[in-house]
Amino acid sequence: MDDLQIIADKIRTMEIRGAGRIAVAASAALRDYAKTLRSLNIEEFNRNIDEAAKTLVDTRPTAVSLPNAVALTKRHSSTNVYDAIDEIVSNSDEFIKNAEEALGKIGRIGAERIHDGDVIMTHCNSHAAISIIKTAFDQGKNISVIATESRPRRQGFITIRELNDYGIPTTLIVDSAVRLTMKEVDLVVVGADSISVNGALINKIGTSQLAMAAQEARRNLIVAAETYKFSPRTLLGEMVEIEDRGSEEVIDPEILEELPNVKVRNPAFDVTPAEYIDLIITEVGALPPAMAYTIIKDHLGLEMLP
Amino acid sequence: MDDLQIIADKIRTMEIRGAGRIAVAASAALRDYAKTLRSLNIEEFNRNIDEAAKTLVDTRPTAVSLPNAVALTKRHSSTNVYDAIDEIVSNSDEFIKNAEEALGKIGRIGAERIHDGDVIMTHCNSHAAISIIKTAFDQGKNISVIATESRPRRQGFITIRELNDYGIPTTLIVDSAVRLTMKEVDLVVVGADSISVNGALINKIGTSQLAMAAQEARRNLIVAAETYKFSPRTLLGEMVEIEDRGSEEVIDPEILEELPNVKVRNPAFDVTPAEYIDLIITEVGALPPAMAYTIIKDHLGLEMLP
Amino acid sequence: MDDLQIIADKIRTMEIRGAGRIAVAASAALRDYAKTLRSLNIEEFNRNIDEAAKTLVDTRPTAVSLPNAVALTKRHSSTNVYDAIDEIVSNSDEFIKNAEEALGKIGRIGAERIHDGDVIMTHCNSHAAISIIKTAFDQGKNISVIATESRPRRQGFITIRELNDYGIPTTLIVDSAVRLTMKEVDLVVVGADSISVNGALINKIGTSQLAMAAQEARRNLIVAAETYKFSPRTLLGEMVEIEDRGSEEVIDPEILEELPNVKVRNPAFDVTPAEYIDLIITEVGALPPAMAYTIIKDHLGLEMLP
Amino acid sequence: MDDLQIIADKIRTMEIRGAGRIAVAASAALRDYAKTLRSLNIEEFNRNIDEAAKTLVDTRPTAVSLPNAVALTKRHSSTNVYDAIDEIVSNSDEFIKNAEEALGKIGRIGAERIHDGDVIMTHCNSHAAISIIKTAFDQGKNISVIATESRPRRQGFITIRELNDYGIPTTLIVDSAVRLTMKEVDLVVVGADSISVNGALINKIGTSQLAMAAQEARRNLIVAAETYKFSPRTLLGEMVEIEDRGSEEVIDPEILEELPNVKVRNPAFDVTPAEYIDLIITEVGALPPAMAYTIIKDHLGLEMLP
Amino acid sequence: MDDLQIIADKIRTMEIRGAGRIAVAASAALRDYAKTLRSLNIEEFNRNIDEAAKTLVDTRPTAVSLPNAVALTKRHSSTNVYDAIDEIVSNSDEFIKNAEEALGKIGRIGAERIHDGDVIMTHCNSHAAISIIKTAFDQGKNISVIATESRPRRQGFITIRELNDYGIPTTLIVDSAVRLTMKEVDLVVVGADSISVNGALINKIGTSQLAMAAQEARRNLIVAAETYKFSPRTLLGEMVEIEDRGSEEVIDPEILEELPNVKVRNPAFDVTPAEYIDLIITEVGALPPAMAYTIIKDHLGLEMLP
Amino acid sequence: MDDLQIIADKIRTMEIRGAGRIAVAASAALRDYAKTLRSLNIEEFNRNIDEAAKTLVDTRPTAVSLPNAVALTKRHSSTNVYDAIDEIVSNSDEFIKNAEEALGKIGRIGAERIHDGDVIMTHCNSHAAISIIKTAFDQGKNISVIATESRPRRQGFITIRELNDYGIPTTLIVDSAVRLTMKEVDLVVVGADSISVNGALINKIGTSQLAMAAQEARRNLIVAAETYKFSPRTLLGEMVEIEDRGSEEVIDPEILEELPNVKVRNPAFDVTPAEYIDLIITEVGALPPAMAYTIIKDHLGLEMLP
Repeated sequence: MDDLQIIADKIRTMEIRGAGRIAVAASAALRDYAKTLRSLNIEEFNRNIDEAAKTLVDTRPTAVSLPNAVALTKRHSSTNVYDAIDEIVSNSDEFIKNAEEALGKIGRIGAERIHDGDVIMTHCNSHAAISIIKTAFDQGKNISVIATESRPRRQGFITIRELNDYGIPTTLIVDSAVRLTMKEVDLVVVGADSISVNGALINKIGTSQLAMAAQEARRNLIVAAETYKFSPRTLLGEMVEIEDRGSEEVIDPEILEELPNVKVRNPAFDVTPAEYIDLIITEVGALPPAMAYTIIKDHLGLEMLP
Repeated sequence: MDDLQIIADKIRTMEIRGAGRIAVAASAALRDYAKTLRSLNIEEFNRNIDEAAKTLVDTRPTAVSLPNAVALTKRHSSTNVYDAIDEIVSNSDEFIKNAEEALGKIGRIGAERIHDGDVIMTHCNSHAAISIIKTAFDQGKNISVIATESRPRRQGFITIRELNDYGIPTTLIVDSAVRLTMKEVDLVVVGADSISVNGALINKIGTSQLAMAAQEARRNLIVAAETYKFSPRTLLGEMVEIEDRGSEEVIDPEILEELPNVKVRNPAFDVTPAEYIDLIITEVGALPPAMAYTIIKDHLGLEMLP
Repeated sequence: MDDLQIIADKIRTMEIRGAGRIAVAASAALRDYAKTLRSLNIEEFNRNIDEAAKTLVDTRPTAVSLPNAVALTKRHSSTNVYDAIDEIVSNSDEFIKNAEEALGKIGRIGAERIHDGDVIMTHCNSHAAISIIKTAFDQGKNISVIATESRPRRQGFITIRELNDYGIPTTLIVDSAVRLTMKEVDLVVVGADSISVNGALINKIGTSQLAMAAQEARRNLIVAAETYKFSPRTLLGEMVEIEDRGSEEVIDPEILEELPNVKVRNPAFDVTPAEYIDLIITEVGALPPAMAYTIIKDHLGLEMLP
Repeated sequence: MDDLQIIADKIRTMEIRGAGRIAVAASAALRDYAKTLRSLNIEEFNRNIDEAAKTLVDTRPTAVSLPNAVALTKRHSSTNVYDAIDEIVSNSDEFIKNAEEALGKIGRIGAERIHDGDVIMTHCNSHAAISIIKTAFDQGKNISVIATESRPRRQGFITIRELNDYGIPTTLIVDSAVRLTMKEVDLVVVGADSISVNGALINKIGTSQLAMAAQEARRNLIVAAETYKFSPRTLLGEMVEIEDRGSEEVIDPEILEELPNVKVRNPAFDVTPAEYIDLIITEVGALPPAMAYTIIKDHLGLEMLP
Repeated sequence: MDDLQIIADKIRTMEIRGAGRIAVAASAALRDYAKTLRSLNIEEFNRNIDEAAKTLVDTRPTAVSLPNAVALTKRHSSTNVYDAIDEIVSNSDEFIKNAEEALGKIGRIGAERIHDGDVIMTHCNSHAAISIIKTAFDQGKNISVIATESRPRRQGFITIRELNDYGIPTTLIVDSAVRLTMKEVDLVVVGADSISVNGALINKIGTSQLAMAAQEARRNLIVAAETYKFSPRTLLGEMVEIEDRGSEEVIDPEILEELPNVKVRNPAFDVTPAEYIDLIITEVGALPPAMAYTIIKDHLGLEMLP
Repeated sequence: MDDLQIIADKIRTMEIRGAGRIAVAASAALRDYAKTLRSLNIEEFNRNIDEAAKTLVDTRPTAVSLPNAVALTKRHSSTNVYDAIDEIVSNSDEFIKNAEEALGKIGRIGAERIHDGDVIMTHCNSHAAISIIKTAFDQGKNISVIATESRPRRQGFITIRELNDYGIPTTLIVDSAVRLTMKEVDLVVVGADSISVNGALINKIGTSQLAMAAQEARRNLIVAAETYKFSPRTLLGEMVEIEDRGSEEVIDPEILEELPNVKVRNPAFDVTPAEYIDLIITEVGALPPAMAYTIIKDHLGLEMLP
């Protein structure tokens, strides 16, 4: 279990980061660990796998892709260890293959929604959203992008650099200019941190403001999300927790110290209700947000629920 | 006209800045200039005053308080110069007195809308909005404030310092966190750059996002605005122009230079429609935005129209 | 001042009740009191009148018609007592005449909005609203009414009796059935306790639910309100206070005593926002709610503000 | 069939009442009756079961849980009577077990949606809704409840007594105070009489007013509903009928008799559209209302349709 | 009165048609008739003028410009006939001058709202709306127009010919394509048949569908309306009547005769609520629809009410 | 393949037209063609079938029922030609039977939504919508219909004739009168050209205006659509293309020639968003639009995706 522990540590310390990379690493780690348990009987095997799964999941208690990856990998119906290992290896290989192909599929499906001449607004820095934009650009569509700064961490700067290097004309705005600029936008495309059973989107703080402004101006918002971003536990009523991050991302600590009556709230995510979302583009198709339960049932499996 | 020219230059170079200070300085300059014209006949006098007025107004062609101050000061109905000067001096004295008392009156009227225990959200750094907040605090109400950073120029930092020094508990958020945080807010209070005849508010970029989020969450938004912020020219169909400011406020120019496909849009203001505004607090009372025309007619005068 | 004190006591103890009756009684009391002050000098006279006015107003601090009646009655511009008394008598006579004619005028103006075959929903028991309904019925229009019970005091029972005796077909519903029944309604007509400068209506608890359901179903809601129901003080930012009444109106005190963890909230009024109101029918015309300020300015007078 | 007839009579006369109790009693009665038919051939057996099923269903033609319970109990695929009886007994045992466990599961899933400090509004007296509230309270969450009177039958009085005895701080309001009070509410929780294929909720008159007020104030409304409350027949286009109850629940018959022009409408239920509902909490998970068809298909079975 | 009668007949038979032309003709006819009454005493004079006014107004009982023109012309405060005639002549001259200049002023004020590159949608054939479009085009703005067919009388064909001849690029659509096409539109500009005290617009059937689609897509709608289009009588609660025109405008009478179960409804106008209107452009300025009462009071005069 | 080619030509030249007739003809043609391929080996057979399928589908590239019919007919899992032919014949027979029975089933399910006394609005000429109306009429319900003209091709004239001949009272209106007339309507019933995975309806131009007006007035809109109208390809992100038809349908070409600055846009369809639709009535049940994916998965099959 040493190698699995190393991966677990890397996830905890955020050396491995990003929903997709975490999911793939955890699945592979569990698969490799399973291969080392050939000598055990099936009860011991299952107990060890469960412990390893828990170790991995506990590294990032609020992530959604991580428990999905672990649960999809570890499930097996065998009564002997050799077959169980085979199942787990096969689960993991399939999960990793799907995860790797997902970005390309999402790009192709989502690009159908982009037309020649479209101006697309995006927020923060989402691989899946950018995959859609780049695929449309590769298809020869004459598009341009409006990217938000995405305070406090300014991931918009990564996005504009990435789009610049791909040759896509891009305009940078501050987050406060979203509503004013919306009238020039044809389509909003964002990624997902996770998606609830009621189709609500949890994503980078500010996403729901793009969504609200798009709704007000009757522009469509599409969400690019791999199926492993959907949260089965929300089916049990659980709500996705919003992480509150340090004040130093927002204001210089020395200045803050001079201001005893001032504190900082720095929530990392917000929640966009389903009615502000037109379509969720997954690797298995473009679906309205109301179909989140179907995605969970058909592609994650209800047995993943604790 | 040398002294008036000096004031005009100070307004142009933004040595004198802020809608209120500009208005007061221009009114005083025109008054003092009028006093120097005693030796002229009435036609020469009027021509000189008109020229001086134009000099002042042209220093900041998009401002609204400036032409209001000038027009309210220069109007007279006299046929001899001495009486004309007396009228102008009296106009100016009244304008300046009203302008100076306006903040206090707005504070007292607006504070009626704040209740013990209220959490108030504000944006940017508005003297009039802060006057309301401080007055409510002075009345012993146990209030707190949520202040936005207000990118790109971060005037929110001025606001939190001002509130901190007054002893008012304040929370700083990034502009993207407005919608998430709105559910903890009881009332939104903002200032005004100007107000149109249809009750639309032109104010710091991002104001309309607070307004939209407040509307969605059914929180009231009140605007603190001196009467000289209302724009008579919008009655003639003119729209308030939105200034586009330099990219260096948003991104380091050296980084931008590396990104040939990226440009920056940095609008200074946005427009909040009247239906998102509950009340406008002026020094002559609290009025719904639909009453903007009445304010213009009763307190600025339709003869101000060109 | 004995007679005036008697009237004041009757208002305080609610022997005299109803916005209109209170207003008329107070105006008459002040007028009659003024007539007894002929022997005073003008300073003493004004001081006595001010004291008497305060006595009357203080009997019901949250009423709106009362201070309006008193202020409209007491204002005068005379420097000798005899002229002042004449002005006050004339003010009072005019106020009382207007108040008495208002119901009829409101009935005639409002009845124009009712068409043959209409089903009208009303709430509580408003003289002005019923005046509109009866006038339309007198005009031979074949109308019917849906009246709410109006818990907790069940004023709906007074309304159905009044309409029954007039021969108007009426259906009684519980307050919870408003939304279900709205699809059979053509028009909602309610009275007013008071109206704010922003056109908001303060009226019997539940009125805003009729308004919300009417808005949802795109039925028009009209408010019948004498001009003396408009609140000048809201121009100063004051909000109309909502009276919380005793629990015994809602539940038998003996039962409540058995339930230590239960308390009762029994607000007497609620606030209907202007955007849910189509027209306010006053004795001086049918006006959209945004015109509340104009009513206050033209028919109550801004000098009524303290 | 005598025993079954006795149960049928008890359901018809409302000696057995409440959607859950009716369903369980009918399922058990059909099961016990099936056991008495061992001597029949399979055709006779099926005909007798169908007749018994019809007898039960006809006792309350507008109920939804009753035909669901009967259909889920009687379905079998056997060609001999002994196996058919075994299937029916097993169906019934499973149905009854699920029904009995449903309240607890709904309580646990729904309680996830309640946070420490929440104020919850509820309407009428729903076992399932109260199960959620009590579970959250049992988890140590510091919550309080606002309960409506629920005219005309005042089931709110049962609710406040039940919550009082459990130690949960509760406030009683009249039904008209829902909208005014909504701004103090964090979450609305109601039960269900039945749920349509399009996610519409049929529940106690007034429920849709809570829902509308919650929607307006952007508060979430969750519905607590066992799966047997969903209506398969709405898939065939049928609408749920709204029962109109006697006038004596609303007004003293002697008073009504004096009022020849007055009649009473006393609808027992109203319909809340799906867009006003955030989540439906069932014993098989928390789902958005758009998933009603999936619940019907997966947990009731399309073969239940006639 | 013969000449006046001739004009009245021409208005009745629609030889003189169009709100503006009718108003001007009626004002002139009344003026010329007044001049013939020099020999009468003032009582006879007033009675004759009143009769003549009634004759004119009765020619088109649902028009709004006609009674406005007549009332503005006939009012006088003189006690001798010569002065009365002078007042009436002066009233008429002023009314006609204002009416003639109104189109130009509306064009200039409204054109401020049109920007280079704008696509403008219009409906039916309004002189005032086209004045705005042409003025913007004359200012060198590169604009284009989408014009509806405007069934049943296809006045859109007049509009496209007029715009074609002026050189303005124009696209013709059927009335059903308004919503689909709205996303390409920047601004909707329509005329007015009349405007109510609550700011509602009565205009050619279909106008409210443009307004609804514009509102949904957050495009502004501006109404071009001379002040004499505002209806003082709506202040008295009267609603503007919608004329129902003949079926032959919609379907060939011979075909209709074959279809005994089919009838035709052909309403000439519909009503657009104030909340769908951004600004009303009059010759005295651009005002929000809530200001309709102010227009009526300041520019038509409340004494015009019967 | 000659016979199949003949059918393909008839579809291309619109000799065979209407979504249902096209689908049935194509399915039968493919079936009959398959029977002629008995002598081929399975690879040759499959290749020939694929080619024939492509020939049929390419006749109308934007239709939705055509590729659905072809894909549902051609799918088989056999490795020998005889079995494959049997499967295809069976597929075709089932498809045709279902298609033929669909109208009747839709009529029966949809008629449940129509109540005695209802006024139904419909647009264009939809077999499925009319099936619902006629079924309700056959059930003895006293209903009437408001039918739109449906410019430019005036299919409303076919509808009114069809309803007239069935004895159903019908009112014809122009398309612009939809909103004004909506307040007299109880239910809107329209057909479908196709339905997207997100529940959006593509139907005759103007449908979305009925839907918008119904939504505004809180009237329900139901869509009558056979399952073969749902578009599986929208699951891959594809959008349904809107055909632009010739200008001669809208205006006389000779007139248009005189107007060099005028062009015509004549889109054949528009898109109604899912939130404006209450229920979609299919032959397999009444479902909310959010269930479109489930219809595609359960009744068309995801393997139909390319």
